[in-house]
Amino acid sequence: MSILVVGSVAFDTLKTPFGVREKIMGGAATYFSLSASFFTDVRVVGVVGEDYTAEHEAVLTGRGIDTRGIEHAPGKTFHWGGEYGENVNEAKTNFTDLNVFENFQPKIPDAYQDSKFLFLANIQPELQLDVRHKMPNVALVGGDTMNLWINIKRDALMATLKEVDILLINDTEAKLLTGENSLVLAARKILTYGPRSLVIKHGEYGATLFFGDGSHPFRAPALPIAEVQDPTGAGDTFAGGFMGYIASQPKLTRSVLKNAMFYGGVMGSFTVERFGPERLLTLTREEIEERFKLFVSLTHLD
Amino acid sequence: MSILVVGSVAFDTLKTPFGVREKIMGGAATYFSLSASFFTDVRVVGVVGEDYTAEHEAVLTGRGIDTRGIEHAPGKTFHWGGEYGENVNEAKTNFTDLNVFENFQPKIPDAYQDSKFLFLANIQPELQLDVRHKMPNVALVGGDTMNLWINIKRDALMATLKEVDILLINDTEAKLLTGENSLVLAARKILTYGPRSLVIKHGEYGATLFFGDGSHPFRAPALPIAEVQDPTGAGDTFAGGFMGYIASQPKLTRSVLKNAMFYGGVMGSFTVERFGPERLLTLTREEIEERFKLFVSLTHLD
Repeated sequence: MSILVVGSVAFDTLKTPFGVREKIMGGAATYFSLSASFFTDVRVVGVVGEDYTAEHEAVLTGRGIDTRGIEHAPGKTFHWGGEYGENVNEAKTNFTDLNVFENFQPKIPDAYQDSKFLFLANIQPELQLDVRHKMPNVALVGGDTMNLWINIKRDALMATLKEVDILLINDTEAKLLTGENSLVLAARKILTYGPRSLVIKHGEYGATLFFGDGSHPFRAPALPIAEVQDPTGAGDTFAGGFMGYIASQPKLTRSVLKNAMFYGGVMGSFTVERFGPERLLTLTREEIEERFKLFVSLTHLD
Repeated sequence: MSILVVGSVAFDTLKTPFGVREKIMGGAATYFSLSASFFTDVRVVGVVGEDYTAEHEAVLTGRGIDTRGIEHAPGKTFHWGGEYGENVNEAKTNFTDLNVFENFQPKIPDAYQDSKFLFLANIQPELQLDVRHKMPNVALVGGDTMNLWINIKRDALMATLKEVDILLINDTEAKLLTGENSLVLAARKILTYGPRSLVIKHGEYGATLFFGDGSHPFRAPALPIAEVQDPTGAGDTFAGGFMGYIASQPKLTRSVLKNAMFYGGVMGSFTVERFGPERLLTLTREEIEERFKLFVSLTHLD
């Protein structure tokens, strides 16, 4: 079933211990949609500038992604510059040129109204809520956010969380959002804010799924990777695999959610192997299934 | 089959957000032996002072632990004072009174010579090597170390590692020991230093077992715990469960090692629920098996 993602479509200029890349494709919606496209039909709503060419868009349509919701505005595309040192878990931002993204007002094509799933990637919480209201008939809403909104737009974020079914954030965001130092206590609090399920991502240590019914959580691994060439987009790729797998299943069960956690980790593990979304462009479903089996062998007793 | 542990038998004075305890039982050999005693016969070699009473020793013998190797020396027992703030992963040392531990020369009772397994808890690497040489007939040697020895006794430590079969250390120690920032690269290096297998402990995120044959690692979870009352001894308790389970099995297979990782995590999860080794004193084998099943449900797909 189809999934709509709303978020940033951007260019990234990146430096890691493994090299430098200038103005390559990036943005949460790019990573999410490429990742989810291995599982289900994907539609994107975002905004780009005049420097976003037909060739860039063809990278998405080449994966079967519906890009009619990508608005082309006068000006330049959102451009982020950042670098990672020896600790790949911490990005240092060199510049954030919002450009056309600064005045982004999500417009949802009529043809997208029958989307069954919605993912609100990390954008201003007011815009997330606006999109949520424009898609009243979706069966399930996933969402992300970031420290910036937790710090400066808390009220708006709390209003948005009321209408998100599954929130996907990382350790730092979960602690900041709740003021709790224990991840378990943080999770318990967040599950009173609206979401019925919560995924907390631990970077190289995997992710934990907390259920709103108070039952025991579920932990999925990350692949121990020798060389993380570029961690950019790992979280959005995780979300794409997680939500994409859910959207591909006839029913949302606990078992589906657990498998989705594994697929999220699998997809994220591919992304970090190369710069930007490069690895996702050569990836095959067979490689995904192979790595899924590897993730099982990494965690399951004989 | 019996396991011999050599390490510190100590008193701890602790402060955590959950309370304060003065001069309670601690030390790596205490946690290790209590934990391992749920799986196999345990013998301890260590040294204590005159303030270590028959009642203290009875806590160990009450769990069936053979304490004939605990030497009683004139003076006071090793006493560590430390505290944990909101971040329970970081201990702040208030004092380290080595006392009789400063001149510890491990003496191994003849009756211990038939031990099949040996665990070299965190003591000076020269003493670890000395003990290793005094126990030439053990089938398997496990070991631990700490940042201090990596920094000031690297050569001695490297000599000891040559004769350790399974090393159990944490993320920080693995990185410091190798100069690698990637845990996978650190693991590969350490597996050229001597150990055939390596367990890297990630605190609240679990632990990873790396195999010397280059095959894929295995990841075991930690239990997401709402309230870690006192993290002291969690790593030594893990080691006790890990080595104790191995010692209880007829053969060392890959499957046994994986299960041992789970039992290590299970035992560690109990210790942090209460101050010091308190929780281990009321624990039952049934509770251990119950939590083992919970660990499986935390990580295994349906």
